Amino acid sequence: MTTASNNPSEDLPWWRGTSPLPGEDELSVRKQRAEDWFRGLRDRICADFEGLERSCTLEHPQTARIEPSTFKRTAWDRPQGGGGVMSVMKGRVFEKVGVNISVVSGEFSPEFAKTIPGADENPAFYAAGISLVAHMQSPLVPAVHMNTRMIITTKGWFGGGADLTPMRPRDADTQHFHQTLQDTCDAQHPDFYPAFKEWCDRYFFLPHRNEPRGVGGIFYDYLDTGEWEADFAFTQAIGEAFRKAYVPLVEQHYNTPWTDEDRQHQLQRRGRYVEFNLLHDRGTLFGLKTGGNVEAILMSLPPAVGWD
Amino acid sequence: MTTASNNPSEDLPWWRGTSPLPGEDELSVRKQRAEDWFRGLRDRICADFEGLERSCTLEHPQTARIEPSTFKRTAWDRPQGGGGVMSVMKGRVFEKVGVNISVVSGEFSPEFAKTIPGADENPAFYAAGISLVAHMQSPLVPAVHMNTRMIITTKGWFGGGADLTPMRPRDADTQHFHQTLQDTCDAQHPDFYPAFKEWCDRYFFLPHRNEPRGVGGIFYDYLDTGEWEADFAFTQAIGEAFRKAYVPLVEQHYNTPWTDEDRQHQLQRRGRYVEFNLLHDRGTLFGLKTGGNVEAILMSLPPAVGWD
Repeated sequence: MTTASNNPSEDLPWWRGTSPLPGEDELSVRKQRAEDWFRGLRDRICADFEGLERSCTLEHPQTARIEPSTFKRTAWDRPQGGGGVMSVMKGRVFEKVGVNISVVSGEFSPEFAKTIPGADENPAFYAAGISLVAHMQSPLVPAVHMNTRMIITTKGWFGGGADLTPMRPRDADTQHFHQTLQDTCDAQHPDFYPAFKEWCDRYFFLPHRNEPRGVGGIFYDYLDTGEWEADFAFTQAIGEAFRKAYVPLVEQHYNTPWTDEDRQHQLQRRGRYVEFNLLHDRGTLFGLKTGGNVEAILMSLPPAVGWD
Repeated sequence: MTTASNNPSEDLPWWRGTSPLPGEDELSVRKQRAEDWFRGLRDRICADFEGLERSCTLEHPQTARIEPSTFKRTAWDRPQGGGGVMSVMKGRVFEKVGVNISVVSGEFSPEFAKTIPGADENPAFYAAGISLVAHMQSPLVPAVHMNTRMIITTKGWFGGGADLTPMRPRDADTQHFHQTLQDTCDAQHPDFYPAFKEWCDRYFFLPHRNEPRGVGGIFYDYLDTGEWEADFAFTQAIGEAFRKAYVPLVEQHYNTPWTDEDRQHQLQRRGRYVEFNLLHDRGTLFGLKTGGNVEAILMSLPPAVGWD
C-alpha cells in the first residue's frame, strides 16, 4: 500500500502516479514477468473453459449436435512490431470465446501520443496484455469481458478490468460477480473498488441508447502507485478473481434449458454489444485506426446477432 | 445544364456551387415540393416492394411460414425540431427493409458547422430526405441502399445516391445496376457519372478490411449547379432510377433456392455492413452523436448477422 506522496496533480487520484522507470535490465525483467504471467493466465482460463465444455450435460436443440470443443490457437504478427496469439473456441457452452494475448511495441501517432501519459516526450510504447470476450450459447449464461495489460512509455502502468453482460440479469449472479472483484480490490486498497467500479459503469455505457452495456464490474487504467510489485500483484489478483467470479456463474446456469424467446432476446442484446464495441470502445477504434490485427481486434464480435 | 461560371473555387467541381438562396416564399415552395416528392417516392417504393412480397412463389424452409408482408409506419419527433416517418417491412422476400423520410431543422454544433457549406456564418439548417436500406431473405438477392436529400443552410443543395451490396456478386446484376444509374446521370450531364461513381467507391469502403462494402453505385453531395429546378429534377430522376435499377434484380433471383452455406455467407457479409455503418458511415455517426432518433438511424442494421 502506498501513500499519496507521488500524486502528480491534485486532480488525479493518488494511485495514478508517474514513477520513474527502472533501468533497462530491470525493465526487461518486468516485461518478461508480465508476459509470462499473461500467458499463464490465458492457459488457466482456457483450461477452465474447456472443462466447462466437457462438464455440461444439457441436451438442447440448439447445441445437441455440438461436441465439447477446445481452443484453436492462431499466432499473428504486427508489421510495426510484436504480435500475439488468438485462442478461439466455438463450442456447446461457449458459442464463441476469444482469448487474445499480445506483446506489441512501436510509436504512437503524434496526435494520439498527446493523450497518453509519458508519450508526449517520446512516442515509443510497449504494451503486453490479455483480452477475453465470451459469448455463450445459453441466453441464461452471461457474456463476459476481461482485459489486463501493462503499458510502458517513458512511464509505466497497469490497466484492466472485468465486466458482466447478462442477457437476463439475476441479482444473485450480479452480486457474486461484484463481490468477488470487490474482495480482491479491498484486499489491495479500500480506495480501489469504489473508483474502479464507477469507472466501469461510466465506460461501458451506450450514450445513444442511454443504457449500460451490462451490469458492470471494474475498470482501471494508469495504475502506478509507485510500488511496481504491488501493482503487478494486483493485476494478477484481478486476473485470478475473474476466474472465480465467472466460472461459477456458467456452472450455475449452463444446464438450464432456454426458450426461443430467450434466444431472440439474447441476439438483440448482442446487438447492443456490437454497437458499443464499434461506436465507443477505445481499444477497438484505436486498434482499427492504427493498423492493428483486424481478426484479433474484432474477435470480440458475437457469432450471431440481430437487430429488430 | 450549366456552365462552370459559378464555380466557387478552382479546387471544386463546377456543379458544387454556392448559389444565393431565393426569398422566403420561394424557399418555402421549394421545401414543400421536395418534402412532397420524398413522400411520394417513399409510397411508390413501398408499393413496389409489397408487390414483390406478393409475387414471390418460392417455397424455401427459411421463408415458407412467412406470409407476404406489408410496411408498418411509425412517426417520430425530434426534440430539437422536425421529425419523420419510418416504414419497416419484415417479410418473405425482404427480411428487413426500412424506408425513412424525415424533415428536420435546428442548429449545427459550432464544430460541425465548420465542415458544412454555408453553416459557418449561421449554424441553422433544414434537411429533408429519404433513406432506404433493404436486407433480403435470399442470399442470392443483393442488399441495397438509397438516399436522397435536400439541405439548406445559408446555401442549399441536394445529395444522394444508391449502391448495391450483393452477397455473391454477378456481373450481369452489377452491370444493370450501374448502367441504369449511368443513363440517368448521363442524361443530366456527362461529368456526373464518373464523379459520382468514384465518390461512391471511395465512400463505401472499409479501410480496416481494405475492401469495398459492395459493388458501388453513385454517391453525390453539395449538388448546386445554380439551376435549382435542374438539380431537383436530377435528384428525382435518381430516386426513380433506383426503382428501375433494383426491382428487376429482386425479380430475377427471388425465386431461386439457396443453400445453408449461402445463408452463412450472407450473415458474415452483413457483418461487414454493420462494421461500415457503425465505424464509418458519417450519417449514422452524426445522427447518433447529435441526439437523432436512434431507431430511425439504426434501422439500417441487419436483422440477423454473424461474425466468425
